Amino acid sequence: MRRSERMAVITKKLTSNPNQLISLSDFSDTLDAAKSTISEDLAIIRHVFGSLDLGRIETVAGAAGGVRYVPSMSDADIVTTVQQVCEELSDPNRILPGGFLYMSDITSDPSLMSKVGVVFATRFAHTNPDVVVTLETRGIPIALMTARAFNVPLVIVRRVSRVTEGTVVTMNYVSGSAKRIETMSLSRRALEPQTRVLVIDDFMKAGGSARGLVDLVAEFRAEVVGIGVLVETLEPAHKLVRNYESLVVLEKVDEENRQVIVRPSSWVSSS
Amino acid sequence: MRRSERMAVITKKLTSNPNQLISLSDFSDTLDAAKSTISEDLAIIRHVFGSLDLGRIETVAGAAGGVRYVPSMSDADIVTTVQQVCEELSDPNRILPGGFLYMSDITSDPSLMSKVGVVFATRFAHTNPDVVVTLETRGIPIALMTARAFNVPLVIVRRVSRVTEGTVVTMNYVSGSAKRIETMSLSRRALEPQTRVLVIDDFMKAGGSARGLVDLVAEFRAEVVGIGVLVETLEPAHKLVRNYESLVVLEKVDEENRQVIVRPSSWVSSS
Repeated sequence: MRRSERMAVITKKLTSNPNQLISLSDFSDTLDAAKSTISEDLAIIRHVFGSLDLGRIETVAGAAGGVRYVPSMSDADIVTTVQQVCEELSDPNRILPGGFLYMSDITSDPSLMSKVGVVFATRFAHTNPDVVVTLETRGIPIALMTARAFNVPLVIVRRVSRVTEGTVVTMNYVSGSAKRIETMSLSRRALEPQTRVLVIDDFMKAGGSARGLVDLVAEFRAEVVGIGVLVETLEPAHKLVRNYESLVVLEKVDEENRQVIVRPSSWVSSS
Repeated sequence: MRRSERMAVITKKLTSNPNQLISLSDFSDTLDAAKSTISEDLAIIRHVFGSLDLGRIETVAGAAGGVRYVPSMSDADIVTTVQQVCEELSDPNRILPGGFLYMSDITSDPSLMSKVGVVFATRFAHTNPDVVVTLETRGIPIALMTARAFNVPLVIVRRVSRVTEGTVVTMNYVSGSAKRIETMSLSRRALEPQTRVLVIDDFMKAGGSARGLVDLVAEFRAEVVGIGVLVETLEPAHKLVRNYESLVVLEKVDEENRQVIVRPSSWVSSS
């Protein structure tokens, strides 16, 4: 096999398995090439990925070592992705009675959410999470794609407890905006103590659900290391959690003039 | 840029955007290379992907044309993936009181479900779906990864109707095994008439949910072209839908002897 062919195979294997350590022997067996040759191939991929901001190729030395692809996105690509979300959200046909916004098609768009997952993986890279946690339902695709980029498990907190979840911890909490009592419930098996948890959700208004997730995670003696939401509303300005990151700020849904006013969050525009 | 470098960039772009048509000009701009050079690069990728069963590279001629990566999995890799699911499922610690099986960690494992998505995309390639439909909650990750492989939207049918879904169609149906009346509901906007729908779910016992989804899709004058489930139970043998495909058959959960008996579905073993 020639180098150009090996490059295609190695690149495919690395980028299809984000954050998974692949041994050099694995490549050298598949491609019938010496490890030193594979190392040279990897150096080329590392260099070109670095120069075009396509993510990092990391090498781990030693017997249990290997190489892995760490997805990350350039600032320019983050801006483009977030702008795409803003553009789709600002379509006035999304306005529902009561000033709500229909966004289920956006939050379950596989291609767009897979990019949003890499945006979150880039933004929260320093938090080094062991697991991504979300509250059903609409945030699941975003959370899954983020978990995939980090190569960590996804844990879905339920609103109702199901028999197939086994023993669960159920918590009542007060939704921040409507001041209604809601329930969330999580299987006892789903989260180990000391786990580093990244909370990912689709929407934050007052932050009641996020607050609830932080409290529920604490019941498992695990630790929330970051909170990411796709869309936050401008009002109320005071949220029930701190240190969260959103991609998009929903400033206003004007039912009368049929206008949706959204903008990228400040960290996005300034990056 | 040398050919070896271009191969890494082109492969990354194609495989990260499954089933998306990318124009040759796009590559030739990014890589500052002539279209004829890019065509040669693509021919090499097409050939090596073909010979190693890594998916297909398809070229669409004409002004609006380009090239796309169609994910597909070799028979051997399908067997390996399904066996991995079987192995994980057969862990006796998954047995819950009442003979239920805890499988939420499997159905939300990003790496494994991304492979399962490609298995379904391979198995249902001939159905040429416009959209993937699932019922919340546990099937969402599998359905999302399948939708991603096909590059079609994911539509999530809800068990409760939410204000953020706008006008919904709500349907009562009878769950096949427990004979309980359940509700499913889908936003009026979510599905156009004549859409070709692939139904993907995590679990099928009597097939009540799948039957409900087929009926609900019919209410939108759309058409179910395939039904895929990760796990089906051996009993009851008579399901409420026909022409579904499962990956795994759950033969028995033996609470007393703490044994879970699972096997790959027959089409998997014979492929």
